[in-house]
Amino acid sequence: LLEFYVLKLYQLSKAGKLCVPAMNVNDSVTKQKFDNLYCCRESILDGLKRTTDIMFGGKQVVVCGYGEVGKGCCTALKALGAIVCITEIDPICALQACMDGFRVVKLSEVIRQMDVVITCTGNKNVVTREQLDRMKNGCIVCNMGHSNTEIDVASLRSPELTWERVRSQVDHIIWPDGKRVVLLAEGRLLNLSCSTVPTFVLSITATTQALALIELFNAPEGRYKQDVYLLPKKMDEYVASLHLPNFDAHLTELTDEQAKYMGLNKNGPFKPNYYR
Amino acid sequence: LLEFYVLKLYQLSKAGKLCVPAMNVNDSVTKQKFDNLYCCRESILDGLKRTTDIMFGGKQVVVCGYGEVGKGCCTALKALGAIVCITEIDPICALQACMDGFRVVKLSEVIRQMDVVITCTGNKNVVTREQLDRMKNGCIVCNMGHSNTEIDVASLRSPELTWERVRSQVDHIIWPDGKRVVLLAEGRLLNLSCSTVPTFVLSITATTQALALIELFNAPEGRYKQDVYLLPKKMDEYVASLHLPNFDAHLTELTDEQAKYMGLNKNGPFKPNYYR
Amino acid sequence: LLEFYVLKLYQLSKAGKLCVPAMNVNDSVTKQKFDNLYCCRESILDGLKRTTDIMFGGKQVVVCGYGEVGKGCCTALKALGAIVCITEIDPICALQACMDGFRVVKLSEVIRQMDVVITCTGNKNVVTREQLDRMKNGCIVCNMGHSNTEIDVASLRSPELTWERVRSQVDHIIWPDGKRVVLLAEGRLLNLSCSTVPTFVLSITATTQALALIELFNAPEGRYKQDVYLLPKKMDEYVASLHLPNFDAHLTELTDEQAKYMGLNKNGPFKPNYYR
Amino acid sequence: LLEFYVLKLYQLSKAGKLCVPAMNVNDSVTKQKFDNLYCCRESILDGLKRTTDIMFGGKQVVVCGYGEVGKGCCTALKALGAIVCITEIDPICALQACMDGFRVVKLSEVIRQMDVVITCTGNKNVVTREQLDRMKNGCIVCNMGHSNTEIDVASLRSPELTWERVRSQVDHIIWPDGKRVVLLAEGRLLNLSCSTVPTFVLSITATTQALALIELFNAPEGRYKQDVYLLPKKMDEYVASLHLPNFDAHLTELTDEQAKYMGLNKNGPFKPNYYR
Repeated sequence: LLEFYVLKLYQLSKAGKLCVPAMNVNDSVTKQKFDNLYCCRESILDGLKRTTDIMFGGKQVVVCGYGEVGKGCCTALKALGAIVCITEIDPICALQACMDGFRVVKLSEVIRQMDVVITCTGNKNVVTREQLDRMKNGCIVCNMGHSNTEIDVASLRSPELTWERVRSQVDHIIWPDGKRVVLLAEGRLLNLSCSTVPTFVLSITATTQALALIELFNAPEGRYKQDVYLLPKKMDEYVASLHLPNFDAHLTELTDEQAKYMGLNKNGPFKPNYYR
Repeated sequence: LLEFYVLKLYQLSKAGKLCVPAMNVNDSVTKQKFDNLYCCRESILDGLKRTTDIMFGGKQVVVCGYGEVGKGCCTALKALGAIVCITEIDPICALQACMDGFRVVKLSEVIRQMDVVITCTGNKNVVTREQLDRMKNGCIVCNMGHSNTEIDVASLRSPELTWERVRSQVDHIIWPDGKRVVLLAEGRLLNLSCSTVPTFVLSITATTQALALIELFNAPEGRYKQDVYLLPKKMDEYVASLHLPNFDAHLTELTDEQAKYMGLNKNGPFKPNYYR
Repeated sequence: LLEFYVLKLYQLSKAGKLCVPAMNVNDSVTKQKFDNLYCCRESILDGLKRTTDIMFGGKQVVVCGYGEVGKGCCTALKALGAIVCITEIDPICALQACMDGFRVVKLSEVIRQMDVVITCTGNKNVVTREQLDRMKNGCIVCNMGHSNTEIDVASLRSPELTWERVRSQVDHIIWPDGKRVVLLAEGRLLNLSCSTVPTFVLSITATTQALALIELFNAPEGRYKQDVYLLPKKMDEYVASLHLPNFDAHLTELTDEQAKYMGLNKNGPFKPNYYR
Repeated sequence: LLEFYVLKLYQLSKAGKLCVPAMNVNDSVTKQKFDNLYCCRESILDGLKRTTDIMFGGKQVVVCGYGEVGKGCCTALKALGAIVCITEIDPICALQACMDGFRVVKLSEVIRQMDVVITCTGNKNVVTREQLDRMKNGCIVCNMGHSNTEIDVASLRSPELTWERVRSQVDHIIWPDGKRVVLLAEGRLLNLSCSTVPTFVLSITATTQALALIELFNAPEGRYKQDVYLLPKKMDEYVASLHLPNFDAHLTELTDEQAKYMGLNKNGPFKPNYYR
């Protein structure tokens, strides 16, 4: 969801219309990985189970979008025995999907066979009415992306289709021939509507946001202009280090000789800013 | 290996000593993922098998460094039934290791129990003589990082230890009490010395380098100063798209409406420059 | 659960006290794998999430028992990033755990570090009061085995401990020093109490039981004596074949030549009775 | 391979032509899992790499047969990013493949798209000349099953095809239109011809065989008739327990109370004979 606001910030900045400095915390490594990759890896399973009691083993699933959210969903579903394919517009993400063992397809090529359709694109009308018409009976459709426009739900509010609420957050859309499509959370975010977010993930997100605000407030004049900035690497690393004790993780320290060899400060930052 | 040269370029640039523009192709997404993550995922298994015929199942392995190379090694070894733990200096990478299911330890805490020790840090003296002294009989030591200094091999060329070459690229270092440590490729890069690199990966690396040179040559004066640049996103995506047909992957195209909604050109680039 | 009754049947039979023929449907391959392995692979995650909203990534988990249920639990938890170790009494299952990448430990060696303790043994007092005393604050304890005796819950109903119901099926047991252990379903079966069973699995189990009854009823006199029998292989295969269309699976048929070469009937059974 | 001889023994026994007692060591759990499942999980990767240097990521692979050998091959290839489907004649194994996330197909449905074809059936002519004719250029064909008849190699020794040996154990079969199929080990067992067998696995197999011979030699007259017997469970467990120290595995012991509750001897056997 935050991705959408960040995109808007960059567009404002490019257009010269941003009137304060802004910190893009969404793309800090820690936030990205936890809120998107790791959290969705768990909530896709949780959200589907709580709403539909589906058995994952052997299910044919298409995931639209192989960004961090899509990667999380695919990993979890594959691990539990689903047969997963993906759709992508970006050749880099598509190539990653290939190397991770997922077939890259167009949605219309596979839509008839799918048991579950999941959107994680940040875009709109990724699942169209025409594709909803072609789904098989019992197909589950849900959205893990950014807003309720990824699935064209509006097109389903139409006189020839009957909606039947079968459980909280679960609607059956019934076609004239009796076919049912199972729509979750009316196309809104599954992970927010039908699953819970672990406190650990909230802690990481909140810490990142708080540190960004403190940095903007304390920064000497001139450090930040009316632009969008990534969280300084060192703060990103600080957020991570605060959360390590939870896992009983033991960090290694550089020796003086090693730090010198690498040209690094012993306390970090350890990676260039662009590193993910 | 390239990571090392890139680091030096940035240090030169920072010191104001870089006298030409330079393109950091090593950190293009495509290069990073293929040369480091995906390629090492395969070559760690291949390199160990060809040299030692080790059975992976149930082996206790410590991987030093959880960057792209370390991630590749850990994924493959875990998948084949090894019990893997990691060491890290960077809290962000350490946190990722936790979430991926690896214990984060200090090398000296676990060294006595390990069957295999693998370095992927880009640093020096990561495995010291003291730690080599504490390894158990039959422990295998190898390097997937950047140079032959990660393992302190020099310290093993010492009169009280006997070297026995048992096979090409495989030395037994014999302690006075009869303990043997199996050193691969004399501490040089295992993936280059004892495994092969798939032509597909070479093709990606070579394409990236060629495009970077063409860009630097063709760029209008002033586009690049005496600094280090990341490969433009669009070229990175172009390299990926050239390699997709190999996998029979079918890319989805944005509709006009979708492209407008996202503020994207239909032909890319699809992601901000910092995206990995 | 059924395992327990089957054990009793064999004990009756051995003692010469069984007065009717009995069919051990629990150990048919289809039933075993679905009800135990595949179903528990999903319900361990579901049961833990619905009761505790736990994040699996990085959690230290010990699974007591590496039979089919334990294997299912371990696979799922490992896939979602938990760090899993197991306990076993049977050297064959212990060896399988090693080869699947799990450390085999005694419960008392690891109990202090664990975030989650899961029992799947079919035995009693697998988790004792002494071990409950040594768990860390917040440790979750639950049972996926056969009855509510695997965890010594009775020992927790004691004046020095306070029970606090925090949610349906979730109790906090509070020690005098403030330590809390999270007990799920009061030690009863987590998969039955806090998760749902997919209709597909119920269908397999019910089909198996129905066919076994029909066989016992229709069998010519003398085919079955007062003993315990495994479901005939052919029926086991029949149950499987009835459920394949669900997955759009296409079975291959033996040619006459191949059937002859293998000494098999083209319609099965395809494996000896002892095959799993 | 042994599976074949065991099958013949059972056929002899059924025909009343077996003139000595025989022990089916092939189907002891320890032997089965190590020689077939765990060993093949590693040797399929090793055999393919050493002969062809193939990159596994993104490759389309069909595995014929989902017994223990097939399961091992599929697990390893999937883990390294290959896209794997399987063929089966047995509905039980087919259902397992579905639940493990593999599409179950007929070979002729997919043969045109495959990058690698692997046979693990124990049967003959599983890959026919007609299917070899339809493979795409560069397709790799190999056999992990029981004899060199699984692939119809004889049909390739035909005047219109050219054989070119490109490396030890690797032949290119060249069609008149220039298409090349890569045949490994002339269709003989890949794991024996192009990979190595870990000493650990040999130790398990040899121990099992030795114990079986000792048992047959020492058994009081009348214990074994002219029939085929499975290795007594207790010996199977003994073999496993001898190999556990290798993994630093710590077995749990039953208390007297627990043994009584389960109706077990504290020293085993711990499972009924039919348990796998």
